[in-house]
Amino acid sequence: MAQMIKPLAFFLLLSVLLLSVSAFINHHDPRQDPKKEYSECQRKCQRESEPGRRQQQELEDCQRQCKDKYEERQGKGGDSYPITGGESQQDNNPYVFEDKHFETISTQHGRLGMLPKFSDHSPHLRGFINAFRFAFLEANPQTFVLPHHIDAELILVVVQGRGRISLLRPDGRQSVNLRKGDVLRVPAGTTVYLINRDNNEKLVIAKLVQPISTPGEFQPFFGVGAKNPESFLKAFSGEILEAAYQQKSDKILRLLDQQKAEFVVKASEEQIRALSQKDEEGGKSIWPFGGESSRNKINLFKQRPVESNEFGELREVNPSDFRPLEDLDVSVSFANITKGGMSTIFFNSKSIKISVVRNGEGLLQMACPHLAQESQQGQGGSQERQRGRGGSQEGQGDLQEQVKYEKVEARLRQGVVFITPPGHPSTLVASNNQNLEVICFEINTRDNDKTPLAGKNNIFSQMEKVAQELAFNRPSREVEEIVRANNNEWFFKGPNQQQQGRALE
Amino acid sequence: MAQMIKPLAFFLLLSVLLLSVSAFINHHDPRQDPKKEYSECQRKCQRESEPGRRQQQELEDCQRQCKDKYEERQGKGGDSYPITGGESQQDNNPYVFEDKHFETISTQHGRLGMLPKFSDHSPHLRGFINAFRFAFLEANPQTFVLPHHIDAELILVVVQGRGRISLLRPDGRQSVNLRKGDVLRVPAGTTVYLINRDNNEKLVIAKLVQPISTPGEFQPFFGVGAKNPESFLKAFSGEILEAAYQQKSDKILRLLDQQKAEFVVKASEEQIRALSQKDEEGGKSIWPFGGESSRNKINLFKQRPVESNEFGELREVNPSDFRPLEDLDVSVSFANITKGGMSTIFFNSKSIKISVVRNGEGLLQMACPHLAQESQQGQGGSQERQRGRGGSQEGQGDLQEQVKYEKVEARLRQGVVFITPPGHPSTLVASNNQNLEVICFEINTRDNDKTPLAGKNNIFSQMEKVAQELAFNRPSREVEEIVRANNNEWFFKGPNQQQQGRALE
Amino acid sequence: MAQMIKPLAFFLLLSVLLLSVSAFINHHDPRQDPKKEYSECQRKCQRESEPGRRQQQELEDCQRQCKDKYEERQGKGGDSYPITGGESQQDNNPYVFEDKHFETISTQHGRLGMLPKFSDHSPHLRGFINAFRFAFLEANPQTFVLPHHIDAELILVVVQGRGRISLLRPDGRQSVNLRKGDVLRVPAGTTVYLINRDNNEKLVIAKLVQPISTPGEFQPFFGVGAKNPESFLKAFSGEILEAAYQQKSDKILRLLDQQKAEFVVKASEEQIRALSQKDEEGGKSIWPFGGESSRNKINLFKQRPVESNEFGELREVNPSDFRPLEDLDVSVSFANITKGGMSTIFFNSKSIKISVVRNGEGLLQMACPHLAQESQQGQGGSQERQRGRGGSQEGQGDLQEQVKYEKVEARLRQGVVFITPPGHPSTLVASNNQNLEVICFEINTRDNDKTPLAGKNNIFSQMEKVAQELAFNRPSREVEEIVRANNNEWFFKGPNQQQQGRALE
Repeated sequence: MAQMIKPLAFFLLLSVLLLSVSAFINHHDPRQDPKKEYSECQRKCQRESEPGRRQQQELEDCQRQCKDKYEERQGKGGDSYPITGGESQQDNNPYVFEDKHFETISTQHGRLGMLPKFSDHSPHLRGFINAFRFAFLEANPQTFVLPHHIDAELILVVVQGRGRISLLRPDGRQSVNLRKGDVLRVPAGTTVYLINRDNNEKLVIAKLVQPISTPGEFQPFFGVGAKNPESFLKAFSGEILEAAYQQKSDKILRLLDQQKAEFVVKASEEQIRALSQKDEEGGKSIWPFGGESSRNKINLFKQRPVESNEFGELREVNPSDFRPLEDLDVSVSFANITKGGMSTIFFNSKSIKISVVRNGEGLLQMACPHLAQESQQGQGGSQERQRGRGGSQEGQGDLQEQVKYEKVEARLRQGVVFITPPGHPSTLVASNNQNLEVICFEINTRDNDKTPLAGKNNIFSQMEKVAQELAFNRPSREVEEIVRANNNEWFFKGPNQQQQGRALE
Repeated sequence: MAQMIKPLAFFLLLSVLLLSVSAFINHHDPRQDPKKEYSECQRKCQRESEPGRRQQQELEDCQRQCKDKYEERQGKGGDSYPITGGESQQDNNPYVFEDKHFETISTQHGRLGMLPKFSDHSPHLRGFINAFRFAFLEANPQTFVLPHHIDAELILVVVQGRGRISLLRPDGRQSVNLRKGDVLRVPAGTTVYLINRDNNEKLVIAKLVQPISTPGEFQPFFGVGAKNPESFLKAFSGEILEAAYQQKSDKILRLLDQQKAEFVVKASEEQIRALSQKDEEGGKSIWPFGGESSRNKINLFKQRPVESNEFGELREVNPSDFRPLEDLDVSVSFANITKGGMSTIFFNSKSIKISVVRNGEGLLQMACPHLAQESQQGQGGSQERQRGRGGSQEGQGDLQEQVKYEKVEARLRQGVVFITPPGHPSTLVASNNQNLEVICFEINTRDNDKTPLAGKNNIFSQMEKVAQELAFNRPSREVEEIVRANNNEWFFKGPNQQQQGRALE
Repeated sequence: MAQMIKPLAFFLLLSVLLLSVSAFINHHDPRQDPKKEYSECQRKCQRESEPGRRQQQELEDCQRQCKDKYEERQGKGGDSYPITGGESQQDNNPYVFEDKHFETISTQHGRLGMLPKFSDHSPHLRGFINAFRFAFLEANPQTFVLPHHIDAELILVVVQGRGRISLLRPDGRQSVNLRKGDVLRVPAGTTVYLINRDNNEKLVIAKLVQPISTPGEFQPFFGVGAKNPESFLKAFSGEILEAAYQQKSDKILRLLDQQKAEFVVKASEEQIRALSQKDEEGGKSIWPFGGESSRNKINLFKQRPVESNEFGELREVNPSDFRPLEDLDVSVSFANITKGGMSTIFFNSKSIKISVVRNGEGLLQMACPHLAQESQQGQGGSQERQRGRGGSQEGQGDLQEQVKYEKVEARLRQGVVFITPPGHPSTLVASNNQNLEVICFEINTRDNDKTPLAGKNNIFSQMEKVAQELAFNRPSREVEEIVRANNNEWFFKGPNQQQQGRALE
């Protein structure tokens, strides 16, 4: 694989990104017929091109991109995208998940999409991250999600839309209005129901799930009957139900059979209105999170940025901001990278990060020592670490060849999920035409540091001069010239901003 | 499998329960010769039947039950017990353990019975519960259990009898009298010995074991020699022992060889008396559990009930009541369901529960989504989740068919152990002739809620009216009529009380 | 295997130990040609023997030991060392690691040696210890270890030499001088570089590693380029690097290619001097360990002994002494057993201990119930626990034959690493000519007790008299005579002191 990319190819990629708005939310099935897609793409190019010479060039670019995209879908795209190496590359990327990787429950009025256990996706993800799962819930406008509980702790982030969630616990009910950016903790075993109270927009919620019974595995429990799922009460004998409800069992079972819809049902405007009162924030909280508990949600998008400049900004909700996150030791953050901008190259000292693209397009690059080892082993034809020389069966292995770093790369678009393990340096680049908005769940957040490797205060600029000399085997002055040139912090002008401007002229 | 039971069959079952007093404690080997058992059963029917017509009916019932029981033992019982589906059903029940599932060390004067690792019993139990094991210790009247330690944390509950336990730690010895209901924590690596100081009754102790070295695995270490086990000191060289004890090694080894009995030895009345002083509760505590530590035991049966009515009561010892339980995050509880009563249908929001029947007979019903999935997969001939349509290898799986709940059912009698995972709705029903007494260890107890699904304050009655309408697709009034009819809390009149009365008339 | 050793054999072993100075640090490859080693050994005997009869005996002993050692290296040594059973025995010892078990990265100026995952070494080590790894770092005099970070928490103990470590975090740099005995915590993801500032002595550091991403697995990340490893920055595209550093990518890449050495590079005397200022202990600490955090290291060797007598002493650094150890719940200790001395036989109630011999020679003995079970199963030809009698497939197994203890034994010399699981009684014996110095990492240290089985306050001496009678089946007086004879605590005169004296006369 080419370690260096040709600038031209890079422009092409970014141009393509402008078009490939194959969004998670508005475009559920990415496997629409490629030919049909190609025709539509061509027509769109025609429609959008204006008369005149410069536009002719644009039209040709646009048409070529349609073709590239088509070929990529047909599995021939490898050559055209030296950076990402084509879709098949992304398929094998252990750290990236696209729409097709989700297991889904689709119904007429909504959809639940869930990533498989991370370790099922890749051996690179067999570590502590497997205590968690990631899921999306989508509910169409004016719908009601049936009451249910799961055997898992939940952190919800409202990606889009306006909803309302009600949580039922033995000591009461609490209902909370949901707006985009809201972060909410739902304790394991809490019965919830939701409405999408908007007339037009989908309600989309990202969920971090921490099962409490078996690592990475959980189950939904629906007490109210539906076509699917049935009520769990139907698993009990008629006699038991009669005694428990002091009603004839046929009457009980009839009630459990009335719901003919699936887990999301349509609600009337009137029903939505009746359920959409203002937040019950003044009332007694039913949450078990101590003194501050009346604050049962927090808005991520309204947090004051912890980092911000013209190239992007970062907002965070940490356990210290929102105590319900404390026992799970999870932070939620939101990076909004200005179009044409990039984040610094950095690593998290402790956190494992699960990120999902909320909007926009871009590129992820990450350095990974694990992959490098693997590909070497692949070449050596050996699955295990090379051990020993001569007859020795273990130990004394010469591990020197193995410390190398491979580039992990992924094209980002709405709905793509990617994992950044701790210690792994990475960067995000926004495309030129749209901000790249990313919501991140960071696991194991206590005492985590984001360590910058470029820009102001990067780790190289903090080395003693003599250490710089010894490390780089060059005069300190030369080192400093490079590591201190960029005086921005966290967000920079991206690699494509100037170049792409040129390319599109 | 019949999801609904025929009332008649249910009466029969409960009648049978009256007879099948195959108790764990007084009846160790459930595999006594079935034919002999059958004859005895018949004779008992004869003995107990009185002259007169009504009694004739009773005699016939009794005899039929003997036959049923015999056939069930022969593996033909399936038809007769549609609720439990016969013993073979119970055999495959992943959540239930009977006497035969225990691994045992039986000696002349006592017995240790231990459940295998839960994950060895069933893949449904491969989760966090595997950090724990469950065991019973039985010591005959007037016996002494040899000093030993194990590499595991221990919570003891005295099920029956009167004993005394001595704990040896580097900074001293502490001895505590044991009565039934006493809950005691023994820190890992603490050397203990026990006596049964009663002249007649067995001492029976239930143990929750949390190994500290390897999950689910632990070992006993006996320092004092016996026929079995030998002293671990015999694993050291004679020279080492000589230097350590400053005595000739043959003298040391001779001492280690004098004990010819096994791990429980007979004690004389005089020895028992000498060891049965009153509790050393006034003395300095040797426990590492902070200020309150002088309180080294607590009696479960003497706790004030947290729930109580004519149909049953529940007593609890929580970490907040008894600090030694705090670091293990375990509660111990005792449910005493009045004969003919039942518990509400409810689930624990977080706790995994290991229950053992102390006395009486009854029925467990639980709704389980996992099993439902499994049986569907079995039908589909596929071990894995169904994934993708057409050629896709992962993701986009339509999970809709799979959300279903199966009935898990078990006949309960003395010594039966059963697991209730978090989130799983379940209920217990006592037989008509005896209270059902159950001791429970609840793991992961912090912020756990018992969520009732029937009776007062059940979760359905807490839904907004419009939500009830939307959920059940019926007018709220109809829903409320059912979910609010039973105004009792936690314990109700059972399904059989009135019916069985009729059946036996 | 002989459970009892013949005294003569024991003397021989200890004599041999006097000679077999096959030190980890000064003697990296234990597989030097055995014949050459034999000749050198013989010559050494000649050189050291003085004229006269007594010396003749010594010479013969010495020569015989050379031969024994040679044969042992050839794999014929089994007979000669009934205690250790020859090297092949040690090879299969699940609890002991020698030089050859280490995976190493060797370079011109230094070496990193790392033990494999413990569970890869033996199924006996598949428990909680697998959260940790053990490693050594050696740097030659006047060298510089390149800056890097790892995805793991680190506890360092300086075994030998004088160094200086610099830690870089986003909020600053902190440099700390290192002397032998210093204990230091390096948080995961912290970039570090080190120097060996001594002109002659190697710097040797023992590391306890707790990976934070995947249990037992971690990776080094080198930001500065070298021949090996390359810089992880080379995994990023040229365009990305240009944008991140605002310099031409070829200039950046050239800088990353200047370092031609491997991960340890030679430094000039001047560079060492420039980097060897005094500790920056007065400055603002960058550590995340609370109020006391300015104290970023502690010296183990300078701690006041917690146990001490003429036969040995024990020093400890506990989390309460040094808060950076608190969240890992690890203690570090140093046992210095006087030549000819031994430690008591004892067990840790909770801690798992990883020990490394810093200096000297000796013997480990430990009682292990697991091994005993295994060898019985081996004899029975069955991998699983024996279960059931007759037709039963599970449970009711008679486990009585299986509770037995096997002797685990290992010859100790510099660099040998051994594991002591909780609850396992063990003892260490120093050779007659040198103190045995052992550095220990104890994991799971909260509320751990060291429980003595011999000497003052041993657990047997704390039993009630009647319990002693019942346990040992002998009059209490006889028991007391043995368990109270040795009035020393923790360290005793070893088995060989007097005997060996005789043997060598």
